[in-house]
Amino acid sequence: MTIKILGFAGSLRKASYNRATLRAAQGLTPEGASLEIYDLASIPLYNDDIREKGYPPEVQDFRDKIAAADAILMVTPEYNYSISGILKNAIDWASRPPGPPLAKKPVGIMGATQGLWGTVKAQ
Amino acid sequence: MTIKILGFAGSLRKASYNRATLRAAQGLTPEGASLEIYDLASIPLYNDDIREKGYPPEVQDFRDKIAAADAILMVTPEYNYSISGILKNAIDWASRPPGPPLAKKPVGIMGATQGLWGTVKAQ
Repeated sequence: MTIKILGFAGSLRKASYNRATLRAAQGLTPEGASLEIYDLASIPLYNDDIREKGYPPEVQDFRDKIAAADAILMVTPEYNYSISGILKNAIDWASRPPGPPLAKKPVGIMGATQGLWGTVKAQ
Repeated sequence: MTIKILGFAGSLRKASYNRATLRAAQGLTPEGASLEIYDLASIPLYNDDIREKGYPPEVQDFRDKIAAADAILMVTPEYNYSISGILKNAIDWASRPPGPPLAKKPVGIMGATQGLWGTVKAQ
């Protein structure tokens, strides 16, 4: 049995340290576990009017992948003493009914930065 | 002299209580002050690669309006015990160099909800 982990980064920058950290984690995933990386670039801004008509395909895909995963790995930069708006927006989509896929899901959090404090406030 | 306030809501829902609260505030703005409403629907997800090439026109417009305002009014729903990803994303764009327009700007925060706790955790 393989433990399926879904990972996503809260930065969209191509050379992002957080995206690189996520790729590094993928390379370090031990036998018996797999880490799939999901790119949040395709997730639109949350809109409850749209949600009521049905989740957009890319959001539904994101929710389905979270639901199918055994655990989640979030890697985020620290912007303004908190997680990025990108990651917060994705969490907002993933925590809405029906059957919010993030509910009761084990979540790991990481962050990478050139700064000395290592994204501690965001975490 | 008129005190210029720029207001924006962290919800994109048309019938949003927070957007309605912002419009109500506009109607209640006393003489000597004006409240302009900015719609965050046009602000894309933050991307530092894009920022390095120059702010997208809609983001530049948003930053210019913040810079020109005497004060800011943020109205946000509470999603997952915090401000919405929409508002956080807008703050992330508005707080980047050069000359981050949000720096040292007086900011008021409001929120509206059907719930008993009135967005207190987000605030």
